[in-house]
Amino acid sequence: MKYYTFKEYLINNLAIENIHVDEISDNLKFIDVPKGEYLLKEGDFCSDIFFVDKGLLRQYSIDEKGKEHILTFAPETWFVTDRESSFFAQPTPYYIQAVEETTVTVIDDHLLNMLSEHFPSFTKFNTQLLHSHIRQLQARINLLLSASAEDRYLNFIKIYPDIFQRVPQAMVASYLGITPESLSRVRRDLAMK
Amino acid sequence: MKYYTFKEYLINNLAIENIHVDEISDNLKFIDVPKGEYLLKEGDFCSDIFFVDKGLLRQYSIDEKGKEHILTFAPETWFVTDRESSFFAQPTPYYIQAVEETTVTVIDDHLLNMLSEHFPSFTKFNTQLLHSHIRQLQARINLLLSASAEDRYLNFIKIYPDIFQRVPQAMVASYLGITPESLSRVRRDLAMK
Repeated sequence: MKYYTFKEYLINNLAIENIHVDEISDNLKFIDVPKGEYLLKEGDFCSDIFFVDKGLLRQYSIDEKGKEHILTFAPETWFVTDRESSFFAQPTPYYIQAVEETTVTVIDDHLLNMLSEHFPSFTKFNTQLLHSHIRQLQARINLLLSASAEDRYLNFIKIYPDIFQRVPQAMVASYLGITPESLSRVRRDLAMK
Repeated sequence: MKYYTFKEYLINNLAIENIHVDEISDNLKFIDVPKGEYLLKEGDFCSDIFFVDKGLLRQYSIDEKGKEHILTFAPETWFVTDRESSFFAQPTPYYIQAVEETTVTVIDDHLLNMLSEHFPSFTKFNTQLLHSHIRQLQARINLLLSASAEDRYLNFIKIYPDIFQRVPQAMVASYLGITPESLSRVRRDLAMK
């Protein structure tokens, strides 16, 4: 699997010159998260954005009956955070957990302000990220309201081409909002088509 | 019903002085939308943000089987747009329709750029709107994944205290992702509690 650093990401996506990237690199923090460990737990205040350099995270909530509901999977080059908590300074309702051994770059307030002040392209990029996020969430709502289990699954493997092989089937079912049995049936039916 | 203009909204939320508000007002456009008429249809390009001065809009999609799925209701002081279409210049999958006779203020690209350039507080405010939007969408996904029909309904009347009286029950059911029969049952059960 490609080990894609935040530094490469900045060079490729923000047209920031190498000399400035080095300056940014000095301010980067990394965290190695063993499989099963948490970057965030319900009730915490989330002030960081995590960029996944390597591995796979999941963001989920637990309902009153103790059932998990997966809001997002974040493989390599994805950003994950709770913008609700970071922006509105409220305790998060989410957990962020490593599904595999994971390395993240931590984008904290300090780095965010530094990037915003010195690199106008970063502010634009951040706005674009927010819009992408809205697009993705709207599409997800639309699928949850309208799509069959099969369509939800087909959409899932389009967004996450290699994740099905990397996570337990029950987690995929939780993301799709269907039972593991329905997911098995959908896959069986598709295999026979 | 209070007739709340975008001008008042700017004064109250953005700490923009009266003299500048007048300058902005000269650039405002308004549209009166008769009940049942559209501000946006599937396949259109959406480049405007609409602020609801008076009335009620709904944003929805239609699936392959012709079934409507309501993404949002927008009563007075709500903003509605398809940020996916406006930001990524893609045709929208949504309709925006007036549920009541509605008046909107149109925030077009020209006004958006003018506000962003001259009023730093507007850029900050716009970023806050994006975060609010993300918060609302995430909460909606969480409800769709995890909540019972009753909890979805209780959440709905918290977000939209007076809308139940203003729209057909079938539209509320469509927003909640449940059948009108389930919605009737939920209301009956709650009334008996």
